[in-house]
Amino acid sequence: MEQPIRVTFLGPVASFSHQAAVETFGSSAELVPRLSFADAFAAVQEQRADYAIIPCENSTNGSVVQTLDLLADPNSLYGNLKVCGEHYLAIHHCLLTRKSDLLDQQDFQSIRRLYTHPQAWGQCDNFLEKYFKGVERQDVSSTSKGAEIVSKDATERTAAIASRFAAEHHGLDILAENIEDETNNTTRFLILKNITADRTAASRFEQIKANATPCGTAKKKTLISFMVHQDRTGALADALLIFKTHGMNLTSINSRPSQARAWKYVFLVEGHLTPTSRNAGAVSEILQGLKQVTESCRHLGTWADQLILGSENAAI
Amino acid sequence: MEQPIRVTFLGPVASFSHQAAVETFGSSAELVPRLSFADAFAAVQEQRADYAIIPCENSTNGSVVQTLDLLADPNSLYGNLKVCGEHYLAIHHCLLTRKSDLLDQQDFQSIRRLYTHPQAWGQCDNFLEKYFKGVERQDVSSTSKGAEIVSKDATERTAAIASRFAAEHHGLDILAENIEDETNNTTRFLILKNITADRTAASRFEQIKANATPCGTAKKKTLISFMVHQDRTGALADALLIFKTHGMNLTSINSRPSQARAWKYVFLVEGHLTPTSRNAGAVSEILQGLKQVTESCRHLGTWADQLILGSENAAI
Repeated sequence: MEQPIRVTFLGPVASFSHQAAVETFGSSAELVPRLSFADAFAAVQEQRADYAIIPCENSTNGSVVQTLDLLADPNSLYGNLKVCGEHYLAIHHCLLTRKSDLLDQQDFQSIRRLYTHPQAWGQCDNFLEKYFKGVERQDVSSTSKGAEIVSKDATERTAAIASRFAAEHHGLDILAENIEDETNNTTRFLILKNITADRTAASRFEQIKANATPCGTAKKKTLISFMVHQDRTGALADALLIFKTHGMNLTSINSRPSQARAWKYVFLVEGHLTPTSRNAGAVSEILQGLKQVTESCRHLGTWADQLILGSENAAI
Repeated sequence: MEQPIRVTFLGPVASFSHQAAVETFGSSAELVPRLSFADAFAAVQEQRADYAIIPCENSTNGSVVQTLDLLADPNSLYGNLKVCGEHYLAIHHCLLTRKSDLLDQQDFQSIRRLYTHPQAWGQCDNFLEKYFKGVERQDVSSTSKGAEIVSKDATERTAAIASRFAAEHHGLDILAENIEDETNNTTRFLILKNITADRTAASRFEQIKANATPCGTAKKKTLISFMVHQDRTGALADALLIFKTHGMNLTSINSRPSQARAWKYVFLVEGHLTPTSRNAGAVSEILQGLKQVTESCRHLGTWADQLILGSENAAI
C-alpha cells in the first residue's frame, strides 16, 4: 500500500492549523505538529514532510509576518519550497467545559476560571462582558492548550475558549458556540510543497485543487517576492506596472524588512489571473519583466484560488 | 510664563517611547505616559495633549501594525490628527542591577534571575547563551518594568535587560552595555499633532524640525492613506503611478485590513520629495489625482525627513 502523505502544521494538536490540515487533506493523511513556523518550513525543505499548511493572513488582523519573513527567505534556506494551494478557515470560538451533568447549557455560574490565548479574550469581548465579568482569566499559549488544561481539570469549575474542533479532540462539552464579536473572522492558510519531491507531484490533493475553484472559475493566484534598487526613482511603481501590463490583478502587497540592510524592504506581491490560451506565458513574462527593473525576484508559486466569495477577491 | 507643551507617549515611564520623547522635545516639555496607542491618539484628538510620539516601524521587525491601524482610522475617530515629524531611536540593551559594591563588572555569577520583555530575550540571544545559560527568566510587560522590579528587589540577586535610559531613571548600575545581537536595530517614531490646535502651530519644536534635516537637505516625507475600488483592474498600480508622475519617490507601502469588509485593504503609502519652486503643489496634485482613481484617500501629514543616513532612505 502506498504511504500516506505527510503534512506538517503549526501545533499543538487541535489548533486552527490542525483543523485546516484536516479540512484540506482529510483523515487519511499523516498530520505532524511543529512548534514553530520555521520548523514547518524546514520539514518540507528537507523532505521530512510532503506538505506544510501555514497561516498567512487573517481577515481582521492582517498578515502573519512570521510567514511573510520565511517566504521572503533572505538566507535562501527554503529554496525548494513553493506555494501550491490555499485554504480559508472561518474562526469561531466556543465556551468549553468537561462533560458534566451538573452543568446546564447557559448555566455559567459555577465556572470560576477561564483559559484561552490572549488574542481570544479580545475577540470575545461582548460575551465575556455579559456572562463572565470579574471571573479569573488565565492566559495560555494557544486556545487548544486551554482546552487540554480544562479536559484534565477534575474540579469541573474551569472553562476554555477554543474551537469546536478542539472540543471534539479533547472530549469537551460545548456550553456556548460562536461567542466571538466578529462573526466574519477568517484565516487564510498557504499550502507549501517541495518542488524537487516526486511524491507530491502526482498527489491526489493537487489534482483535486487544480481542477476548479469553489466559485466555478479556474482563477489562479501567483505569489512573487522582489527587492527594488533603492536608488531608482519610482522603482516600486515600475515593478507593479509589469503585473498590470500582463493582465495580472494584484490581490495583496506586503513589505517586510529585507534583513540585508536597515530600511531596505522585500516586497511580497500576490495577484490573480484567469488562464486563457492567450495568457499562458503571463507568469514567466512578468518574471522576465521584473528581472529588468528589480534587484532580485522569485516566483513563490501559482495555485488555484479557493476564496468562495468571488466578488470579495477583486483586484487592487 | 507660557505653559510647557504637553507630549504623550506609550508608557510606562522609562520606555523607549519615553526616551524618544525626551530626545525630541527636551526636558522642559511635560511628558505624559499612556497605556495604549489608542489612548495616545485620543489624547491629541481631544487636545488633552499637544503632541503624541508613537513607534511606527522597527528596522528589524517591520511595521507596528497598531499604529498603522490607528492612522488608517476606519471609524474617523482621529480626523484632526496629522503627522508633523519623526524621530529615529537606536535600540540598545544593557544588563542592569541595583547599585551594589558586591558586584564587579562582568561578575554575573551571583545573579539568579533575569527580567525583561519577551522580545528582548531573542534580541540578546548570544549574550544570554554565553553568560546566563540556565538562569531563570521572568517575562515582564516592558523592559522598563523589568528595571523597576529589579530596582525594588532587596536581594540584589536579580538583573534586568533594559535601556541605559531605564537604568538612569530607576537608579540602576549598568553591568554590561550593548548586549544585543543586532547592533543596528533602530525604531522610527512618528510625531502627531492636532491640526486645529493653536498651541502647536507656532511651537518651537516644529520650527526647529522644519528648517533642515540632519543630512543637510530639506527633504520632506508625506504619508497618504487610500482604499481602491475592488472591481477595477490594476487599481493599485494606477494609484502608485500618480506618486511617480508628480516626482514623489515612495519610501514605504503597507496594506492593512480595512475593517469595512473581509479582504478589503487600506493602503498607507509614504514618499519623499525635495521641495523646489516647481513642485510646491505636488502633494495636493497627488491627492487630486488619487481622488480620481481611489474610493477614498486622506493626507496624513508632511514633515521633515530625519533619517541621518541619506543613502539608506532611497526611493522604492
